[in-house]
Amino acid sequence: MAVRKVHASNNSEPAMRVMACLNEKELAFQFVSVDMKVGEHKRQPFLSLNPFGQVPAFEDGDLTLFESRAITQYIATEYANQGTELLYSDSKKKAILLVWLEIESHQFDPAAAKLTWEIVLKPMLGMGTTDFAVVEENESKLANVLDVYESRLAKSKYLAGDSFTLADLHHLPHIQYLMGTRSWKLFESRSHVHAWAADITARPAWSKVLIAMKTEV
Amino acid sequence: MAVRKVHASNNSEPAMRVMACLNEKELAFQFVSVDMKVGEHKRQPFLSLNPFGQVPAFEDGDLTLFESRAITQYIATEYANQGTELLYSDSKKKAILLVWLEIESHQFDPAAAKLTWEIVLKPMLGMGTTDFAVVEENESKLANVLDVYESRLAKSKYLAGDSFTLADLHHLPHIQYLMGTRSWKLFESRSHVHAWAADITARPAWSKVLIAMKTEV
Repeated sequence: MAVRKVHASNNSEPAMRVMACLNEKELAFQFVSVDMKVGEHKRQPFLSLNPFGQVPAFEDGDLTLFESRAITQYIATEYANQGTELLYSDSKKKAILLVWLEIESHQFDPAAAKLTWEIVLKPMLGMGTTDFAVVEENESKLANVLDVYESRLAKSKYLAGDSFTLADLHHLPHIQYLMGTRSWKLFESRSHVHAWAADITARPAWSKVLIAMKTEV
Repeated sequence: MAVRKVHASNNSEPAMRVMACLNEKELAFQFVSVDMKVGEHKRQPFLSLNPFGQVPAFEDGDLTLFESRAITQYIATEYANQGTELLYSDSKKKAILLVWLEIESHQFDPAAAKLTWEIVLKPMLGMGTTDFAVVEENESKLANVLDVYESRLAKSKYLAGDSFTLADLHHLPHIQYLMGTRSWKLFESRSHVHAWAADITARPAWSKVLIAMKTEV
């Protein structure tokens, strides 16, 4: 039985981020389903794993963590010598990687998360209908962000440098959800962004997440 | 002349975060004023420092960085052996520190930033009047976040463990701005949070930021 556990619900984008990282590192883990529809994440025993009541929570032996981007950074550091190398050791390269981790978190994610919610998850989960004013506002914000990405990816194969890192990996869930939606035009119309999105979503570690999500839940 | 440069405007919370970190590390730097009122941050040469057009940008020799939390993590790592130690080296302690860095960024900051804007900066900069519906919504969110902080700080002197780290430091600008405002009751009414806020805002490295902001701008 795997000592590592990912506690999450189906469709959880942050949990998919963590699972992609575990797969890149070739680490076995157990998926523990949290039923958010009945509020399992807002009561014990889940709150003892994450007092903010959000999925995923992660256990590695006696260590309990939450916040997906903290979990992935822990995994990438702790298991640096196995699977895909997801960080840089050179201090200047690492600094650029830190910048792109923050860009994903503070520039890409706010707009992409709202689009994923409005276009995909809200109707899928029966939580209401898409608010197109919100969609248009956030497509405009994401377009500006992707203009910067397009310039960057014209000069560099991946966001932080020449190899795939956590900075790319963190984008996978939203890119996957937006693929094929009306917002996908923002990616398709930018050739370097489009090639990068195709490249990172084709990684075997990511395919394994998508298969697991379909099977598990 | 200092080789390190912080490009920012007056009152910039993210820039204050970076300056607090530089002061903790006893690193000299030059403050380069960016006049946001006339849009200097949205045009060249600033855009070549940060293509997203946001302050601060940071130069350390030939390295240019932006996103305040990436800059502080670079500084804390690159200058690990001088001034205050702001990170942990033990892998489990470091993992907990990563969690609290993300909590500040994704739980505390969204509510605290909106409160700072509505209550302090918007009226101060003549950008409009406070929207009290937004204030109430975000006070409610921040109260929930600070409930978790109160439990944590009852068991641990600082957020990530027994010593002051970047996880605490990142909170300084919003705490400073909210001090004495109507939202300060959220801190005052939680004894451990209140003691922690008093402790971290009394640090000499932070006082030096406040003095510099008054003098520089």
